[in-house]
Amino acid sequence: MTAKIIDGKAIAQELRGNIAKAAAELAKDHGIVPGLAVVLVGADPASEVYVRSKSKAVTDAGMKSFDHKLPADTSQDDLLALIKQLNEDKNVHGILVQLPLPSQIDSTLVLNSIDPNKDVDGFHPVNAGRLATGQRALVPCTPFGCVILAKKMHSSLSGMNAVVIGRSNIVGKPLAQLLLAENCTVTVAHSKTKDLPGVCREADLLFAAVGRPEMVKGDWIKPGATVIDVGINRVPGEAGKTKLVGDVDYKEALAVAGAVTPVPGGVGPMTIACVILNTLRAACASAGLPEPKV
Amino acid sequence: MTAKIIDGKAIAQELRGNIAKAAAELAKDHGIVPGLAVVLVGADPASEVYVRSKSKAVTDAGMKSFDHKLPADTSQDDLLALIKQLNEDKNVHGILVQLPLPSQIDSTLVLNSIDPNKDVDGFHPVNAGRLATGQRALVPCTPFGCVILAKKMHSSLSGMNAVVIGRSNIVGKPLAQLLLAENCTVTVAHSKTKDLPGVCREADLLFAAVGRPEMVKGDWIKPGATVIDVGINRVPGEAGKTKLVGDVDYKEALAVAGAVTPVPGGVGPMTIACVILNTLRAACASAGLPEPKV
Repeated sequence: MTAKIIDGKAIAQELRGNIAKAAAELAKDHGIVPGLAVVLVGADPASEVYVRSKSKAVTDAGMKSFDHKLPADTSQDDLLALIKQLNEDKNVHGILVQLPLPSQIDSTLVLNSIDPNKDVDGFHPVNAGRLATGQRALVPCTPFGCVILAKKMHSSLSGMNAVVIGRSNIVGKPLAQLLLAENCTVTVAHSKTKDLPGVCREADLLFAAVGRPEMVKGDWIKPGATVIDVGINRVPGEAGKTKLVGDVDYKEALAVAGAVTPVPGGVGPMTIACVILNTLRAACASAGLPEPKV
Repeated sequence: MTAKIIDGKAIAQELRGNIAKAAAELAKDHGIVPGLAVVLVGADPASEVYVRSKSKAVTDAGMKSFDHKLPADTSQDDLLALIKQLNEDKNVHGILVQLPLPSQIDSTLVLNSIDPNKDVDGFHPVNAGRLATGQRALVPCTPFGCVILAKKMHSSLSGMNAVVIGRSNIVGKPLAQLLLAENCTVTVAHSKTKDLPGVCREADLLFAAVGRPEMVKGDWIKPGATVIDVGINRVPGEAGKTKLVGDVDYKEALAVAGAVTPVPGGVGPMTIACVILNTLRAACASAGLPEPKV
C-alpha cells in the first residue's frame, strides 16, 4: 500500500479562502471586521517570523492585524496593562501573546488575564472547561487543525478508534476532547503507556504529538489507518545541514497507512489557518452570531 | 476466580473519619470550620433524603451545614440572589444546588453563577478547565470517589489500561481526566463505540457509567480486572418489588474480575464522602493552605 499524502498546505489554503469569504460577508452584512492583536515581547528571530506570517494571514483574509512589539525588558505590569487595554478594545476580537515570554514575566498569569472570549489560542482554563463540557469554546489551533485534516479524509469520524499519543494541555488533551465530540472512541497514550506499539495498532486514526523524532514506526500502524503527525523535530541531515522530521517515520508510514501528513506541510499550515478561523469565530460570537460556516 | 468485593461503604466511612480529623486540625490550627450550604428548591422526596444525608455527613465531620429550602415556585432571580449571598458569605466554603431544579429556572445559568472556588460539585466550566489543564480544581464527586476506590485496590495506577464507558460531563469525562493524571492509558468508550465488549476486555480498570442495567457482562471483563460500577438502576425484582442494580452484571463479574464494586454500597457512599472532602479542600484553598491529607 502507498498512503495518500494529506496536503496540509493545500487544505489550509482552501480553508483560508473560505475564511476570507466568510469575513467579507460578516463585513457586508454586519459591519464587523475581525481583528487580531499579536503581542511579541523581545526579538526572538523564530517568533518574529511566526508573528509576521500570522499578520500576513490575517490581512490576506481581509481582517485587521494589530501588532504590538515590546522590548525584552518589558515589565509584567506593563504587559498586563496592554492586555487589559486589548480586552476592552472593541476592534480587537482575538489576542495572541507569543510564547516564550522573558523570565521576568509569569506566562500563566498573563495568559489567564486574556478575556476568554478573545483567547484565540484557546489556552485559558475557561476555554478548556467550555470544550470539556461541550459548550461553544475557542479551541487550541493545532488540535483544531488536526481534526479538520482527519475530517477531510473521512466523511464521518463516528465510531472510529482514535489514538492520541501525548497528553499536553495544548495538543493531546484538547485533541482528545474534540475527537470525543466527533463520536470517536478515544484513547490517550503517553510515556507511561505499556505496549505503545500495540495500542497504536488499534487506531483507525493515529495522532502523534510527543516531540520525539520518527518514534512511530511502520509496524505501529494499522494498515489503512489515517496518521496525523503533529511533531516538528529538527535533526541532523545531509552534508552537515539539519532537516525537519515529524514524530512518525514518514517513509515507513507511507508503506502501511491509508493516509499520512508530511512534515513540514501537514499540520503546520493548519495551525495558522485555525488562528484566523478562531479570530473569525470570536468576532461572530462577540456579536451574538452563530458559528461561521467555512 | 471469585472477585474481591470493594466495600465502598467501609472505605467511605474511613475516609469520612479522616476528613473529620483533618477538619478538627484545621479548626485548631487556623480557626477555620468548613461550611457547606445546600440549596433545595421544591419538595422532591428523593432529593430531600439526599440533602438530609449530606447535611448529616457534614455535621458528623465537625463542619457547618447551612440548609436552604425554597418553595417550588421560587423565581430564578431569587435563587440567583441567594447564591450571590452565599458566594459572599465567609462561613460558606462550599455551595451545592440540588438538581433537578423546577422548569422556570435555567439550571446551567444557576450552576455557572456559583463561585468556582465554592463549587464543591465541580460542575462549573472553570473547574472543568482547571481539571483539564492540571491545575488545582474542585472535581465532580462521583468520579473523584471512583478513583479513590481504584487506588485502594492498587498502590499505583500508572501504566494501567483504564476504560471508561460513558462520556457525561459529570462522570465519564472528568473521570478520564483524573485517570490520565494518575498516568493511566485512558480510553473513553460510549454508545457509538464499535465492539464495546472487545474494548472493555483490554481494561485493567473498567468503569461503567452509562445507566443501562447489567449491560457489562462477564465476558466483557479481562480476568483479574478491577471493575467500578457507577450505575444505579431500579429494575423489577421479586414479588412485585423493585431492586437496584448497576451497569455491570454483578454475578457474572464476580466470577471473572479481580475486584468489583457492589450496587448499592460501592460508588454511592463515596460520592457523599467526596462532597465533604471537597468542602474541606475548598476551605483549605480559600485560606491559601495546601491540599489536606486525608
